[in-house]
Amino acid sequence: MRLRSRDSGSSVLIVGSVALDSVKTPLCQVEDALGGAAVYSSVAASFFAPVMVVGVVGEDFPEAHLEFLESRSIDTAGIQVQPGKSFRWGGSYEYDLNQAHTLFTELNVFQDFRPAIPKAYRSAEFVFLANIDPDLQIEVLDQVENPKLVACDTMNFWIENKRDSLIEVLKRVDVAFLNDAEARQLVGTGSLVKAASEIRGLGPETVVIKKGEHGAMMFCDNVCFAAPSYPLEDVVDPTGAGDSFAGGFIGYLARTRDTREPNIRKAVVYGSTMASHNVQGFSLEVFRKLTHEDIAERYNEFKQMVFFEPV
Amino acid sequence: MRLRSRDSGSSVLIVGSVALDSVKTPLCQVEDALGGAAVYSSVAASFFAPVMVVGVVGEDFPEAHLEFLESRSIDTAGIQVQPGKSFRWGGSYEYDLNQAHTLFTELNVFQDFRPAIPKAYRSAEFVFLANIDPDLQIEVLDQVENPKLVACDTMNFWIENKRDSLIEVLKRVDVAFLNDAEARQLVGTGSLVKAASEIRGLGPETVVIKKGEHGAMMFCDNVCFAAPSYPLEDVVDPTGAGDSFAGGFIGYLARTRDTREPNIRKAVVYGSTMASHNVQGFSLEVFRKLTHEDIAERYNEFKQMVFFEPV
Repeated sequence: MRLRSRDSGSSVLIVGSVALDSVKTPLCQVEDALGGAAVYSSVAASFFAPVMVVGVVGEDFPEAHLEFLESRSIDTAGIQVQPGKSFRWGGSYEYDLNQAHTLFTELNVFQDFRPAIPKAYRSAEFVFLANIDPDLQIEVLDQVENPKLVACDTMNFWIENKRDSLIEVLKRVDVAFLNDAEARQLVGTGSLVKAASEIRGLGPETVVIKKGEHGAMMFCDNVCFAAPSYPLEDVVDPTGAGDSFAGGFIGYLARTRDTREPNIRKAVVYGSTMASHNVQGFSLEVFRKLTHEDIAERYNEFKQMVFFEPV
Repeated sequence: MRLRSRDSGSSVLIVGSVALDSVKTPLCQVEDALGGAAVYSSVAASFFAPVMVVGVVGEDFPEAHLEFLESRSIDTAGIQVQPGKSFRWGGSYEYDLNQAHTLFTELNVFQDFRPAIPKAYRSAEFVFLANIDPDLQIEVLDQVENPKLVACDTMNFWIENKRDSLIEVLKRVDVAFLNDAEARQLVGTGSLVKAASEIRGLGPETVVIKKGEHGAMMFCDNVCFAAPSYPLEDVVDPTGAGDSFAGGFIGYLARTRDTREPNIRKAVVYGSTMASHNVQGFSLEVFRKLTHEDIAERYNEFKQMVFFEPV
């Protein structure tokens, strides 16, 4: 386990939402908890590599949340504090924890967010464009200087309402994360294998399809890699699972600076590892006390879970 | 690849439906094709071990179908020919190939089927109770003599209408196959992991949950093994996928006579291999020309598909 020495790795730039989430699941509920795609992915990535995060919060954003990010060696100089209230999201999950039901979305300061990438961040070798308006993702791409690997996430709303911009983003990224429904919706096909192949045709060399409790699949070149999800008896709160996955994925690649296919498989498993830890608690609860040993142990469990002997 | 020498293995007894299927999928359609759970599972198992099949057909059942089974070294002496018409099932699949829509079910001679296990079959070491009325599955269990391993399949209809009998069956089998919806329905829980654990509490030491395009999971003792499904661009006809899976699974166990956990993992992958081949054609089309080399090749592809390096 060599996760501790991060000196040799690259840092990760992450751009996306910083939010206060109110979430209700069958097991519990919480109000105005730390959340947002950029937060989940930054904290997950911070276990592997130094992170620089760009986002926006309102004047009401608790200082303690920013201090927590800084305690994880996440550079928060790129988080603008704007007059007004922070972005808030409210959602609930029924027993089908794969599906979030949005109760409210208050964009507040996020409404007019324009990502300004600090000069010191622009040379980041690894960039994750978390789920935001693809026009803003393009603005980020225009500001970064020759990154080694760029990954993006998106959601059904942008597929429906900003398709052309999203296609433009996909042309310019190396890795696209989508969940299975989004992948099917984007290219209009029932077969995930065909969908992945068509999305790769739009630009990204690597497509990662997140299937919640059914695991994740990674497609690149002639490779299809399948990782299961970790078998949990209870999911406490699935919020941020996809972002934790993406953060673990890109954080691991940044730490190793190796973007070859065998290492991308490992990144998928580290992503699955971070996602599975995250959903075992509310908000960022689990990440606050997670250790590198916990990560390595679960990674090894994934290895055990898929092992079978040759013919 | 040592699948050819079957002499050292045990034989498999399979009891279930023998049918004429009329199926429509987005890619094609067929009428009165060879089908039925006992047929799919027997033919899949026959690639690994000698098979004895018990079922019933009407006088209209094409002789050529029985000849095909015999050509695969399947002993068909246990298939009763009764006056009347054969069991017929009609179904269709939309683009969501995970879900069969039943168009008609004509039980015909299957209505009064009572499984009479020929004396020569009763000492079979491996028994697969394909999806039939659990009361009939119990009748089979009462006739067999000390098998090494018994596996059963079922369906939502029996969970809803013959729950007590099904629970009795589960008490007496070693392996239960269910799809994910059935597993959740049987014990009324959203979590598959919890469902598997509760079903194991009802009797079977091993529970295999089939998830269609999302692969299969095997639970036993403290083990959770996950196998992906094979990534196919097009599924021609999903009919019989679960039965092909079960046949490959039990056929492989019978051939190796090894029911320890590491070998059960292999059986799951052989099951997945057989299911994935089967859905690439209509009815038993693919199995008619499948070779042991095809099976070994796909098994190896499964191995590649899940491989990742250690921490």
